[in-house]
Amino acid sequence: MKKHNFSAGPSILPQSVLLKASEAIVDYNNTGLSLIEISHRSKEFVDIMENARALALELLGLEGKGYKALFLQGGASTQFLMVAMNLLEKRAGYLNTGAWSAKAIKEAKKLDDIYEVASSADANYNYIPKGYDVPSDYDYFHCTSNNTIFGTQMKSFPKTSVPMVCDMSSDIFSRVIDYSQFDLIYAGAQKNMGPAGTTLVVIKEDILGKVSRDIPSIMDYKLHIKAGSMFNTPPVFPVYTTMLTLEWLKGLGGVAAIAEENEKKSRLMYSEIDLNPLFKGFAAKDDRSMMNATFNLTNDNLKETFETMLKEAGISAVNGHRSVGGYRASMYNALPLDSVKALVEVMSELEAKA
Amino acid sequence: MKKHNFSAGPSILPQSVLLKASEAIVDYNNTGLSLIEISHRSKEFVDIMENARALALELLGLEGKGYKALFLQGGASTQFLMVAMNLLEKRAGYLNTGAWSAKAIKEAKKLDDIYEVASSADANYNYIPKGYDVPSDYDYFHCTSNNTIFGTQMKSFPKTSVPMVCDMSSDIFSRVIDYSQFDLIYAGAQKNMGPAGTTLVVIKEDILGKVSRDIPSIMDYKLHIKAGSMFNTPPVFPVYTTMLTLEWLKGLGGVAAIAEENEKKSRLMYSEIDLNPLFKGFAAKDDRSMMNATFNLTNDNLKETFETMLKEAGISAVNGHRSVGGYRASMYNALPLDSVKALVEVMSELEAKA
Repeated sequence: MKKHNFSAGPSILPQSVLLKASEAIVDYNNTGLSLIEISHRSKEFVDIMENARALALELLGLEGKGYKALFLQGGASTQFLMVAMNLLEKRAGYLNTGAWSAKAIKEAKKLDDIYEVASSADANYNYIPKGYDVPSDYDYFHCTSNNTIFGTQMKSFPKTSVPMVCDMSSDIFSRVIDYSQFDLIYAGAQKNMGPAGTTLVVIKEDILGKVSRDIPSIMDYKLHIKAGSMFNTPPVFPVYTTMLTLEWLKGLGGVAAIAEENEKKSRLMYSEIDLNPLFKGFAAKDDRSMMNATFNLTNDNLKETFETMLKEAGISAVNGHRSVGGYRASMYNALPLDSVKALVEVMSELEAKA
Repeated sequence: MKKHNFSAGPSILPQSVLLKASEAIVDYNNTGLSLIEISHRSKEFVDIMENARALALELLGLEGKGYKALFLQGGASTQFLMVAMNLLEKRAGYLNTGAWSAKAIKEAKKLDDIYEVASSADANYNYIPKGYDVPSDYDYFHCTSNNTIFGTQMKSFPKTSVPMVCDMSSDIFSRVIDYSQFDLIYAGAQKNMGPAGTTLVVIKEDILGKVSRDIPSIMDYKLHIKAGSMFNTPPVFPVYTTMLTLEWLKGLGGVAAIAEENEKKSRLMYSEIDLNPLFKGFAAKDDRSMMNATFNLTNDNLKETFETMLKEAGISAVNGHRSVGGYRASMYNALPLDSVKALVEVMSELEAKA
């Protein structure tokens, strides 16, 4: 039976990408060698890295606009530190919209002064704060575009006079926005891009070189840019698989095309949540995420029945994060509309039964 | 034609490991899902991580001796910084035996005082310094067990009264030594363990918690230990493939069994270098690496002929690093003796021809 994989990350990837990645492990492009046993300085891998970097900028509409794309290691958790090390001189403003924002704030605070411009912690992060100010003497403003755990998403971003940094780990490449409003974007690969193990960082180069600290080499964006994202041995397989996913996305028609699909999926999902009396959405309606729908049963006695039905329908990984409870349907780029239909069908059947 | 892969890293892996890793990308253990699209918190992946961590300690003979194994991201280059952040309070001693030692020193110096206990930089690192002292009031002593670029290897280690830290990226699991003489060992996976993208760190827990700095979370060994090496999303595929290689090694009889093979390979290689008048070894004989043999042609006019013959014999990646020139044969655990025989045969044929 086909599995419907709603995992929040690492998460579903296109089947064609998985097949190609699997082949490359045995024999890369008829070289007689596995992709993972050749030098990262070989023409084969340098081409992969350069292609992945170029595709990232192209798909975000950031070619020729002063940006560089890097594929680093260490996840968003490492970026919490790198962003502050490279950009924080005196004070920065952070928007606190969830567990990941809070972690970013915690790490930056170890280096210098951080000001929370606004927070939705008071309501277990079920909404996105609005109407805050970002003072013009801050070093930068940091926000999280999509909150995987809570199922909220920023629909618009503030106009700031300081560089805007955004953690887009869970919604990059999923929707049409003006990506050039950001000066630094980072995203772990394991949601919309590829396997865990690499992190895309897109930086407008002119924001760098303005802090006085002696940045450790491995943390220094400038050194990574200078080395063409090969300051040290890159995570070969995660970068290759990410390149394949970006090629797949380009083949579909890019971000605009996938955004239409994502809208269909989330409309279907949220209309079931709203119309079916057995379910209740967690996030404020205006701030609902297109990527992660969070919802609860209105009657907990139905839990066992519902979960058995999910299992029988081949629906996997819809359990909610422990800090929200209930259910979470992650609908990343590679999840087919059919999987959402299958989930919605089970929800309707439960209503018919109850 | 079978390729003989002498790549210095990323490098050859056992064929059985590549086949299993390739299968897991399409369907992991008949779950109907790819290994790289399931949650790292799933039982499937937690089992992989725990198995890999346990195997690492078992194969090094460090079980039940107060050590913990971690699989992190960022390569040895990140460890240069993490070691200093976690252990450096006032001053540490470093042995400078090559380009990687020098980088480790450079990064640690950004944090505090570093003293080079000895260096072979004066002779382009073609030997390992001996007879140095490590003062007992240092925070730790750091060395590099094998120098991939120069083809030298430490055959013994100093007795120190301070914690001993060792970068074993290019010879871990390859020879029988008392691994318990070290308090912290780190090694990028991409030589003797697996694909690029994860780094093994083995730490004696009681050396931690002694510095006053507020360590950034992602750099803090204690937090990684507490989280069972899952402080953040781990590099799933590199960890899995590393686990497969460690299982393969255990199946062969462990480090003692592979060490015998490695001795055979390096004896054959160095005896050809010494007996064939067309070649000259780069490293001092007493300090020659069992993993990376570096050598030059005595007559540069033979370069083209030799390299054509290598190509015809399916021998790949034996060109030397730019800082040494000539040739480098990397003979990691997974390289079969037959590949060394094929290389030695080409060297003999060249002698017969010349």
